[in-house]
Amino acid sequence: MAATPEELVDIEAIRQLKARYFRLMDQKQWDDWRDVFVEDVEIRTPDDTGDPTPIIGRDVFVDGLVPMIDAVPTVHHGHMSEIAVDGDAATGVWSMEDHLWWPPESGLGHMWGTGWYEETYRRCADGAWRIATMLLRRVRIEADGAQIFPRVVA
Amino acid sequence: MAATPEELVDIEAIRQLKARYFRLMDQKQWDDWRDVFVEDVEIRTPDDTGDPTPIIGRDVFVDGLVPMIDAVPTVHHGHMSEIAVDGDAATGVWSMEDHLWWPPESGLGHMWGTGWYEETYRRCADGAWRIATMLLRRVRIEADGAQIFPRVVA
Amino acid sequence: MAATPEELVDIEAIRQLKARYFRLMDQKQWDDWRDVFVEDVEIRTPDDTGDPTPIIGRDVFVDGLVPMIDAVPTVHHGHMSEIAVDGDAATGVWSMEDHLWWPPESGLGHMWGTGWYEETYRRCADGAWRIATMLLRRVRIEADGAQIFPRVVA
Repeated sequence: MAATPEELVDIEAIRQLKARYFRLMDQKQWDDWRDVFVEDVEIRTPDDTGDPTPIIGRDVFVDGLVPMIDAVPTVHHGHMSEIAVDGDAATGVWSMEDHLWWPPESGLGHMWGTGWYEETYRRCADGAWRIATMLLRRVRIEADGAQIFPRVVA
Repeated sequence: MAATPEELVDIEAIRQLKARYFRLMDQKQWDDWRDVFVEDVEIRTPDDTGDPTPIIGRDVFVDGLVPMIDAVPTVHHGHMSEIAVDGDAATGVWSMEDHLWWPPESGLGHMWGTGWYEETYRRCADGAWRIATMLLRRVRIEADGAQIFPRVVA
Repeated sequence: MAATPEELVDIEAIRQLKARYFRLMDQKQWDDWRDVFVEDVEIRTPDDTGDPTPIIGRDVFVDGLVPMIDAVPTVHHGHMSEIAVDGDAATGVWSMEDHLWWPPESGLGHMWGTGWYEETYRRCADGAWRIATMLLRRVRIEADGAQIFPRVVA
């Protein structure tokens, strides 16, 4: 169903919210990055971690992730949003691609992947949209050019 | 010329139409994918196939393509749309990049390419926009890192 | 702050302006490309050139660049715009990725990079938006797979 002109304002706000999600992460601006999520955000990255259990809470999520990637150059690109607004709630799907250059001592090398974010958003009391739930599904992840997801079964 | 606020609704609908084109293909959701095209869609991919002859008809196109890529992991990303609406017709140009991982027995390897889609769209009787014509022009295609388009002449 | 429905028209115009910037450069349509900039445009690409001095003027910029890349296949993709409009002025940030295939005799090989454009735009007397200032910051640049930015210090 087509969006209304009023909903286009919300769609653009959510699009720029997700743009800040990507940019602030890659620029390591963690205080501003924290603010793109609702306090009780629910994060799932099962294809990356092998763990389907959601992480609940932006402080738990951000405080856990920052020590892992603060010193790691990262590039996260998002594409082709499908956003639908319903009052103060919204859903979105984004195609994505990312690069991480882990330090030599990690043995992880250059990690590259693609997939989709399936998300919901909430219009908060201050009028700003924030990410409420985020699920990252993967098509493929490579480490130094070798496929690591989908897991290769010998 | 600037779009009107009403045309922005159509532009967003067409943008999400193309997002479904990309996502549903990579997710192999072929029934839903078929529905992004008008019945008499005209498809041309001369730089990929070497054949300038258009394929006419969504069933011919989809039924021909699905057996080729249903089991092949694919990633198609679209960028930077230039969409212009004129009543129930519209034109669009999209930058694109794709990956296909052909099975080992094919000898084709990892195919990667970039280019542009030049498209037209039609507002159908049910109110939905669909892809009416699609031409894919390429800047470059590589197979396992070797340039295969533009064709290298010895 | 959310855009107004009227500002969405300008945001879409600026988005399509930047789409033309990318496409016309990669299609080597230099006359049309020149027109995406204001006459007194200010360009800075310090991470690419090592030189923080701005280039002033679209003719200086375009006439200097065209001989360098007219025969070089290039792919420039833009992502995830953050655009804010204030009357006849606007600001924008874009994530980007580019490829250049330098000729063998150059010894430069395949150059690949990512980063952000930080830009301002001006609504001109003819009603069209044009790029007024452009700063390109980089996360990473590689030449044939070897990191050349950030500069590696031995």
